[in-house]
Amino acid sequence: MKKVRITFWTLAILLIGFAGGIYLFGSNSNVQQQSNSSGSIMMEQAVEPPEKIKKVIQTYNLIKENYVETVEDQQLIEGAIQGMLTSLEDPYSSYMDIETMEQFSEQIESSFEGIGAEVSIVNGNVTIVAPIKNSPAEKAGLRPNDQVLSVDGESLEGLDLTEAVSKIRGEKGSEVVLEIIRPSASDVMEIKLKRDTIPIETVYSKMKKVNNKKTGIIEITNFSERTAEEFAEQLMNLENDGMEGLIIDVRGNPGGLLDSVEEIVGHFVPEDIPYIQIENREGQKEERYTDLKEKKKYPIEVIIDEGSASASEILAVALKEIGYDIVGTNSFGKGTVQNAVPLGDGSTVKLTFFKWLSPKGNWIHEEGVEPTVKVEQPDYYFSNPVQIKKPLSYDRAGAEIKNVQQMLIGIGYNTERDDGYFDKSTQKAVKKFQKDHDLKETGKVDKQTAGVIEAALIKKIRSGEDDQQLEEALENLYK
Amino acid sequence: MKKVRITFWTLAILLIGFAGGIYLFGSNSNVQQQSNSSGSIMMEQAVEPPEKIKKVIQTYNLIKENYVETVEDQQLIEGAIQGMLTSLEDPYSSYMDIETMEQFSEQIESSFEGIGAEVSIVNGNVTIVAPIKNSPAEKAGLRPNDQVLSVDGESLEGLDLTEAVSKIRGEKGSEVVLEIIRPSASDVMEIKLKRDTIPIETVYSKMKKVNNKKTGIIEITNFSERTAEEFAEQLMNLENDGMEGLIIDVRGNPGGLLDSVEEIVGHFVPEDIPYIQIENREGQKEERYTDLKEKKKYPIEVIIDEGSASASEILAVALKEIGYDIVGTNSFGKGTVQNAVPLGDGSTVKLTFFKWLSPKGNWIHEEGVEPTVKVEQPDYYFSNPVQIKKPLSYDRAGAEIKNVQQMLIGIGYNTERDDGYFDKSTQKAVKKFQKDHDLKETGKVDKQTAGVIEAALIKKIRSGEDDQQLEEALENLYK
Repeated sequence: MKKVRITFWTLAILLIGFAGGIYLFGSNSNVQQQSNSSGSIMMEQAVEPPEKIKKVIQTYNLIKENYVETVEDQQLIEGAIQGMLTSLEDPYSSYMDIETMEQFSEQIESSFEGIGAEVSIVNGNVTIVAPIKNSPAEKAGLRPNDQVLSVDGESLEGLDLTEAVSKIRGEKGSEVVLEIIRPSASDVMEIKLKRDTIPIETVYSKMKKVNNKKTGIIEITNFSERTAEEFAEQLMNLENDGMEGLIIDVRGNPGGLLDSVEEIVGHFVPEDIPYIQIENREGQKEERYTDLKEKKKYPIEVIIDEGSASASEILAVALKEIGYDIVGTNSFGKGTVQNAVPLGDGSTVKLTFFKWLSPKGNWIHEEGVEPTVKVEQPDYYFSNPVQIKKPLSYDRAGAEIKNVQQMLIGIGYNTERDDGYFDKSTQKAVKKFQKDHDLKETGKVDKQTAGVIEAALIKKIRSGEDDQQLEEALENLYK
Repeated sequence: MKKVRITFWTLAILLIGFAGGIYLFGSNSNVQQQSNSSGSIMMEQAVEPPEKIKKVIQTYNLIKENYVETVEDQQLIEGAIQGMLTSLEDPYSSYMDIETMEQFSEQIESSFEGIGAEVSIVNGNVTIVAPIKNSPAEKAGLRPNDQVLSVDGESLEGLDLTEAVSKIRGEKGSEVVLEIIRPSASDVMEIKLKRDTIPIETVYSKMKKVNNKKTGIIEITNFSERTAEEFAEQLMNLENDGMEGLIIDVRGNPGGLLDSVEEIVGHFVPEDIPYIQIENREGQKEERYTDLKEKKKYPIEVIIDEGSASASEILAVALKEIGYDIVGTNSFGKGTVQNAVPLGDGSTVKLTFFKWLSPKGNWIHEEGVEPTVKVEQPDYYFSNPVQIKKPLSYDRAGAEIKNVQQMLIGIGYNTERDDGYFDKSTQKAVKKFQKDHDLKETGKVDKQTAGVIEAALIKKIRSGEDDQQLEEALENLYK
């Protein structure tokens, strides 16, 4: 189930920002206040706009009347708003139109409406990677590796993943018919499903014996609405189960709601030190405190990497400054707080209102949290997807060959060189790989071989068997 | 003098756009009309802005009141205008603030105020490449290879070319003192100059004997205010001198004023076919005609390349469609006409008003003009600046090595491979090059060797001795 989050990576950027205060959308009355207050400002100003804004209106009319093509009002209005936000040179302040807002809400609410299956493109086919537990997909009997041919009679051929997913998704309660090929069956099947609300889990935990000690590992993939609650529950379960040490893994976690991380920090930072400081535009700092009497009795570590941003960094730096070890690589470096302010028509402006500082008053913006124990993952974790135009072969040289060499080394097929020169040892490694994977032993890397190498690498990374950051964290925990 | 244009390449993008109609700025009364007409639209609308623009004002206020940092009004206003223009997804529609407008005017007026010298950075020093004829720089005795140490007592050390140039330039009539080192002299000299208006030439012509025929070659680097006049004068001189064939070279010419190219086309396209068609947003086409009775009696060719855009393409396609050969590579592909509309405060909106079509009604936008005789320049014309982190040496591989191999081949030091593998033949070529250039014969390419290779390549390209497009044009002209 954990792998579900992969399908959401394209949206991750939206979540690097998170809301200030305890409110963001929906039924909370504070949202309405916020909305109304800016709404009333608007009405006053609209009658007599600031003198300088006339230049904007002048340009608006110039374009409407003269541009070589007809332009919709909305396009220009959204362009102007986006342009003002762009002028701030703040990557976290942005305009979200109605559609973007829907995706954003999905993230924040950690749920979406659909059939509940992780899908991927495999060899050009839309393929079920895994159905989510208790989802319509699971109940209807969808299985991993099922290929989806069509949705409600419409072929998925030629669509990319996002396009295919948007066809499969739909409102709760609506019905959809998928045409499926199952590798083990010969005929095409039609499967009818009723879409539902699918929760996205953001907390995963397990207990592991390390040096004979019961060690809890909690991974948080995102700080969304139900994350703090899930975290509290799983932490309690681990503690009840006799946990003797805890590792919190926020690698690749882009952040989320301030609320959510505040509740989680509340389990660990005692009341005598602020867990965060919020600084406003006038430079005034508000120190925030938990009501926790004392620190946990067991050792704790946080694992971070360059993808840990925002809320993840609030957690990491707070725990670091009260003496816990932070393992991994330097984090992303986002030290600001955004507020999502609705404009009244379904669109929203996400704007940076505040800076946040660590308990001791450090601003980690654009610097990140430095781990106390630095550990990098192996090089092959960062290899690029292979683009094969013509097969790579002996005595050729280039960046693609370097990439493939690193991947081969990653999956245990050692080459003497990894600098992009295709030497005899690379040829030998390729032949061995091809033999082991029932490919023709050409010693050349064509599209097929490259694809199988890539798949083997992804499998190895996903298996976690070579997760050096986690290994180091476990080793270090009871020192 | 021709090399002066190199200093302007950073601004070239502005010139890909050109003005519609015969007016763009300055004293022409039509400009005033344009300005006033949009000015009055503004005034009407400002009192009661379009309903939807309230959302822009609302966001404006939201940012002013809440953004984590204080923001200037002007920044938001310019952001909004730029944002509306960006929303058009038209690279040729843009906002020009007061400073950008000044640079733009310099281009269009083909003059600037300064001392009149082409400068460059050579081995980290600001160096005079050539003083412009009759300029203050020439009159004061500045010579090629003079190094400029300081300007009015301020050291130029560590400045890049743009920064250094901005210190040397200044208003007509103002005085400036340069501290100079001259290679042939031992002492530092101080030279005082009075800045003046420096015209930028945009037309260069020469006569060359080809197969015993007097062949005129006119290069146009830009279509600016005085270009048509210069062209007419130089064309007349060549004709009076008995020219038997003409080559017009608009390679790398990004375009300019529509006026300017219209006058030039008027020398060649006869009155019985439109030389251009201007299409408005309603799809109405205006055919424009010259009053030329008949075509030139001598053969003509136009040379274009991927840098020939806009006005250059108007010229090329018009001459192509009346039967002349076009030599070189496919041109840039810009088929629209912009108008620069002043907003009344010195800033300007450059907006696409029209499409232009060829005499026969073809729209070359995003396609370019296809030459009738395709000739590419040698590969080494397109090699990249070399970035040496650590010296390149035998048995290494990589993109930088490939680049250096192409450069070596370009300047006549042949290597057996040019695929990025540093083989024995590459080592030999490097040693030979080092010997010929008084460098230590290491066979490795370090920063110094790479720099000398690059300089040798630039020198060869500038010499024009291997200009295969021009050679082919000359060969083809009398066929």
